[in-house]
Amino acid sequence: MPNALPITRSENFAEWYQAVVRLADMAETSPVRGCMIIKPWGWGVWERIQQQLDRRFKETGHQNCYFPLLIPMSFLAKEAEHVEGFAKEMAVVTHHRLKTIDGKLQPDPDAKLEEPLIVRPTSETIIGDAFQRWIQSYRDLPMLLNQWANVVRWEMRPRLFLRTTEFLWQEGHTAHADKADAMRETRQMLEIYREFAENVLAMPVVPGEKTANERFPGADNTYSIEAMMQDGKALQAGTSHYLGTHFAEAQNIRYQTAEGGTALCHTTSWGVSTRLIGGVIMNHGDDDGLRLPPAIAPHQIVLLPILRDKPEDAEVSAFTDGLARDLNALMALGAPIRAFIDRKPTKAVEKRWDWVRRGAPIIIEIGPRDAAGGNVTFLRRDQMYDGPPGGKAKMQTLSRAAFVGKAGSLLEEIQKSLFDQAAHRLCDSIRTDLRTWNDIAAYFGADDDKEFKGWVRTAWSRPTGAELDKVSAQLKELALTIRNAPLDQRGDPGTCVFTGKPAVEEILIARSY
Amino acid sequence: MPNALPITRSENFAEWYQAVVRLADMAETSPVRGCMIIKPWGWGVWERIQQQLDRRFKETGHQNCYFPLLIPMSFLAKEAEHVEGFAKEMAVVTHHRLKTIDGKLQPDPDAKLEEPLIVRPTSETIIGDAFQRWIQSYRDLPMLLNQWANVVRWEMRPRLFLRTTEFLWQEGHTAHADKADAMRETRQMLEIYREFAENVLAMPVVPGEKTANERFPGADNTYSIEAMMQDGKALQAGTSHYLGTHFAEAQNIRYQTAEGGTALCHTTSWGVSTRLIGGVIMNHGDDDGLRLPPAIAPHQIVLLPILRDKPEDAEVSAFTDGLARDLNALMALGAPIRAFIDRKPTKAVEKRWDWVRRGAPIIIEIGPRDAAGGNVTFLRRDQMYDGPPGGKAKMQTLSRAAFVGKAGSLLEEIQKSLFDQAAHRLCDSIRTDLRTWNDIAAYFGADDDKEFKGWVRTAWSRPTGAELDKVSAQLKELALTIRNAPLDQRGDPGTCVFTGKPAVEEILIARSY
Repeated sequence: MPNALPITRSENFAEWYQAVVRLADMAETSPVRGCMIIKPWGWGVWERIQQQLDRRFKETGHQNCYFPLLIPMSFLAKEAEHVEGFAKEMAVVTHHRLKTIDGKLQPDPDAKLEEPLIVRPTSETIIGDAFQRWIQSYRDLPMLLNQWANVVRWEMRPRLFLRTTEFLWQEGHTAHADKADAMRETRQMLEIYREFAENVLAMPVVPGEKTANERFPGADNTYSIEAMMQDGKALQAGTSHYLGTHFAEAQNIRYQTAEGGTALCHTTSWGVSTRLIGGVIMNHGDDDGLRLPPAIAPHQIVLLPILRDKPEDAEVSAFTDGLARDLNALMALGAPIRAFIDRKPTKAVEKRWDWVRRGAPIIIEIGPRDAAGGNVTFLRRDQMYDGPPGGKAKMQTLSRAAFVGKAGSLLEEIQKSLFDQAAHRLCDSIRTDLRTWNDIAAYFGADDDKEFKGWVRTAWSRPTGAELDKVSAQLKELALTIRNAPLDQRGDPGTCVFTGKPAVEEILIARSY
Repeated sequence: MPNALPITRSENFAEWYQAVVRLADMAETSPVRGCMIIKPWGWGVWERIQQQLDRRFKETGHQNCYFPLLIPMSFLAKEAEHVEGFAKEMAVVTHHRLKTIDGKLQPDPDAKLEEPLIVRPTSETIIGDAFQRWIQSYRDLPMLLNQWANVVRWEMRPRLFLRTTEFLWQEGHTAHADKADAMRETRQMLEIYREFAENVLAMPVVPGEKTANERFPGADNTYSIEAMMQDGKALQAGTSHYLGTHFAEAQNIRYQTAEGGTALCHTTSWGVSTRLIGGVIMNHGDDDGLRLPPAIAPHQIVLLPILRDKPEDAEVSAFTDGLARDLNALMALGAPIRAFIDRKPTKAVEKRWDWVRRGAPIIIEIGPRDAAGGNVTFLRRDQMYDGPPGGKAKMQTLSRAAFVGKAGSLLEEIQKSLFDQAAHRLCDSIRTDLRTWNDIAAYFGADDDKEFKGWVRTAWSRPTGAELDKVSAQLKELALTIRNAPLDQRGDPGTCVFTGKPAVEEILIARSY
């Protein structure tokens, strides 16, 4: 039997990705160019991402709130670097009414806005404006806010989840009395993202600081977590920015100090988005479709009763109901188990492969013999085959009591096995032995786009200005970027591969999404 | 001591409302005309509304998903009545880039969209377009979807929560094989809204059907729940629409029947919004601020340790921590109790009144004597005074053990007492004895806007066409509308107050938000 997808990762990774998104029922393109429709199964994953991040934000003292979707154009213009960074890709609202003119619906010329409004590409400017009103004294600091929101950045080459004109995200915005406290926050949120990516998404990441040419527009320091996809490319999975006093200066965010003077606030912002779902797909998917880490699977265990309009159906149904009830009363990964019965009146084998493609961690098929014998026959999505992939699926059987007793640890094992696979891949795919530009260029230079390329961890002297521009251009020729300077720097980095000067840190070089 | 607000309900209800929104830290106006900033305390209420509604939607088989914010203008034009209803108040996106021209940031003329996009005022058209693709066979029905989203409808006279240009809501959209199933859904969701409003928001409502002149653009039947505010005005708090086959015809939403033919789907939509928060404020607020039903209060019990930089502080802190821990381990209203310690370094009396204004159901003040004696001194927000309002606040004292033992039932009592007060007001404020137009006009006619006017329940013959237009005009002269025809119709309604013909049903007439 062939795999459950029409295409494999090795044949064409980009097309494979699209096939998984579609056949796992995650999302689809919409009639609005660049915008996606997130389908219930994809949304269920996002809901779990939201819940688990939100808990972490609240545990660290952040409060949720909500700021307007529409931002006056003049706000964007306040912070020069910021407007430069974003002005190129925004949805601009110019009218507030439609009218039928000559039988044709069109923007009403009498309803033209005096000042255009921007659909938020991010909310630093409008939240900064509120900070300026809300923060009076050192007693009001730190101010720790977060919002869950949709944002729009016009995309000419959209890809579902990875790069869409509208996407969903959370954006944290905080204000602090001094740099030390703001940096502590910036690093704390980076660590929360790392821990969440690894423990919840089962996605190993490298946390580090972005180089000057890759910073957020208006930031002093930008940190990221970078994940490796199965084609070797890097995906920036979350960012945390120390904004210094740039926005505070532009927006006059000042506070009265304990000593009675006034001082500028130091602000931060940090965010992750629906892009994470693309990362999960490219991290864990295989040639049969998606494989969801149990911690974010909307259904962790899917039960498929095999009904044939025969007298045994009643027993099969009753067995299925009882098993689901027992499973849902158990805990795994710190939350109640989510078992689901798929009663759709289609063929059992079709349903099995639908759930394989969607990546349900455990799929149980229940026929008359299972019900009569009190057995549970199941498929572990992370251990599909005894033999080569695409062969016969490996159904396992346990007594009902044994399965129920083991269900929680099975799910935890699957969560761990997905992480371990990805962690080994990441670890094995970072070259640390390429210490000259020629070596690096030779490694990445091969024309064959299909060949797997990992990352290169090498050393540089952190050039600036024209020297840095030259590095960027050099990398761009090979479609490379610097992902970050990992936090875990080790010993003497040696010599810079770009300048030949003594290096000051190691950096990761990779192709990226 | 005067009340905790600068204005009372009886002095000026509209200004009182604004004062509560502001001083209870619920929301504020933003620099973008008509859009609001929802502050953490207000957002916490919305989160609880979301959680509890979402659970009800899922229990009745609905799945969440997400559709694009931006809708092609042509989509709106597909359903004639619908476009007529909405075209007058939408944000129109015409450009996808800004550019600095002559030193001034402006929409880039080279980035004008071929077809303008509309920021969704509601999503029937774009979801209908997906239904048309997703629904093939009777096996796909019913399709039961919901989304939590922001929508924009331009408002010339915005009021926080009640009528804002951007607001947050959920919109359910479902497709069914026939009218019976779609009507069952429409009525089921109305009942869910009623039950939720009464049991969670403690807000009694009258469910009923909207009259033809008040229907949603494109609906065959619109149902609403109507709540009475403390000034006697009605607030439409939720609507559920049976859309017939209008959208299915306009968008070609068809399915193959079990018999092999094809048929049009019958669709529904239903929604509630952040407007509910305005309803909660106007239902339960008093002259000291907001009173939150415990089921939606972000903090149900607020603990205020009175610290004075003295040695006793340690004991006060320890007592407070222990008490909060014990309370958070208890259940009330089907969920863990939410106790919160406010450690802000401001005066205890200021903090007390802040939490009174915000409407925390129970406020505990902990001083050295409480800690030493093991007592809990608390204020019930729904029983603030022994004497007249504005007098001395009624602090109650219980032993620590007695308070902890009683905390859950206290919260449930407060939930019930808020509902009972509002239910009595609603019941007492519906006149059923006005059976002629003259009587009704005399009741509502008095010029004095300050005088409390309730609702009138009277009878009509359900006129249509020109006769109905005349009724609308007649009502409009007195700033009245028909709210709905309550579901609980009783016996023979008598004679129509408008036409003098035999009546077919009773309706509610009121001023409204």
